[in-house]
Amino acid sequence: MAQQKVLIYGGRGGLGNVLVNYFKSNGCFIISVDLAANDAADVNIVVNPNDDWMKQEVAVTEGVAGHLGGDKLDAILNMAGGWAGGGSDSTDFIKNCDLMWKQSVWSSAISASLASKHLKTGGCLILPGAKAGLDGTPGMIGYGMAKAAVHQLVKSLAEPNSGVPQGSFCAAVLPVTLDTPMNRKFMPDADFSTWTSLDFIAELLFKWANSPDERPKNGSLVQLVTKNGETSLVCA
Amino acid sequence: MAQQKVLIYGGRGGLGNVLVNYFKSNGCFIISVDLAANDAADVNIVVNPNDDWMKQEVAVTEGVAGHLGGDKLDAILNMAGGWAGGGSDSTDFIKNCDLMWKQSVWSSAISASLASKHLKTGGCLILPGAKAGLDGTPGMIGYGMAKAAVHQLVKSLAEPNSGVPQGSFCAAVLPVTLDTPMNRKFMPDADFSTWTSLDFIAELLFKWANSPDERPKNGSLVQLVTKNGETSLVCA
Repeated sequence: MAQQKVLIYGGRGGLGNVLVNYFKSNGCFIISVDLAANDAADVNIVVNPNDDWMKQEVAVTEGVAGHLGGDKLDAILNMAGGWAGGGSDSTDFIKNCDLMWKQSVWSSAISASLASKHLKTGGCLILPGAKAGLDGTPGMIGYGMAKAAVHQLVKSLAEPNSGVPQGSFCAAVLPVTLDTPMNRKFMPDADFSTWTSLDFIAELLFKWANSPDERPKNGSLVQLVTKNGETSLVCA
Repeated sequence: MAQQKVLIYGGRGGLGNVLVNYFKSNGCFIISVDLAANDAADVNIVVNPNDDWMKQEVAVTEGVAGHLGGDKLDAILNMAGGWAGGGSDSTDFIKNCDLMWKQSVWSSAISASLASKHLKTGGCLILPGAKAGLDGTPGMIGYGMAKAAVHQLVKSLAEPNSGVPQGSFCAAVLPVTLDTPMNRKFMPDADFSTWTSLDFIAELLFKWANSPDERPKNGSLVQLVTKNGETSLVCA
């Protein structure tokens, strides 16, 4: 069996880093795309944050094509993104809307474009949703808009003639709060037993990438609901 | 009774133009915001398309504040936006995603910011949705993502502490196809009896702006479903 090739967008982030290590330790060839290199990856494509959306897409696409030769990717896992709060009256409202869009949606649309060119038939494309984005988010408006757009993108990609290869599996994972070092630092008094572990997500995505029978329905928005340290999957 | 002050974002577009004329003929003072001036408006704020999102917001906000003095707006009606097709494999995929975002979402977020500063208590903020954005849109992915974001923004703004004034009415209108000269030109063989007339929308928004009792529930996504030339309102 040929070595699996997996692209991890946001491979230097809190969750991306765990994914790179997990898939790598399970024998995969890893292409990391991020603003900085992840030395644990086999190949790094470093995005210039000053490039606009189109330039970033061209640069990433050329980089991926160069490293793949004619090979195909088994999975594209986009875990890029961050968080910013604020309602419509906050000083940084537009600035934060812009940041959220760039982090979650630019990376997701470029991932969809990469999938149309380089994902194998029956491959796996996972995008970064959020449970909060299923409803209104008055205290974090930019975040909610960006995640709602990612959710709708997943629904589009799962339909026929969306541009991704036949039989692809497209889904989003919708966490509430991830158990990252940054979140522990900034919310030291929170109830960590309701936070989703990064290892859980790594195992879940590895299972989806490798076992088509384990995948939920194409186009699923998969909520990760954690209670007492146990995470359940709830399709929205 | 003081003259009503109404801001129309996209006041030079096909629909915006009809709104400017309708509200003006009903005695309102009109501020039009668009890439070009509408001579029928009382005041024009011309947006520089080369400015980024933050700069556009600052320029529009300063322009509006200058023309209002300390007065408040009775309504903010954003009818900016356009259409572009394409799946994830189309040559202009990212370019069109970017364009759709700028047209529908930049204008909507700036409208929300304006509402937080200049809308009167109980005023009316209407944003440009689309029925298609409620589901997947594989053949027009950028359009669907932008409209889904606008829909989610409306849900956020209708919740408490979103930043807009107390008692504001926020909603989106979700047309299928508008009966504009441009659409007649590019789809000459379509069934026009299923297209929604611009006059219908002008009358609807005027009613919402003037009669709080006629408004649907705050946060509504109001589908405009036209059959045999008759349009029904269906809340999503």
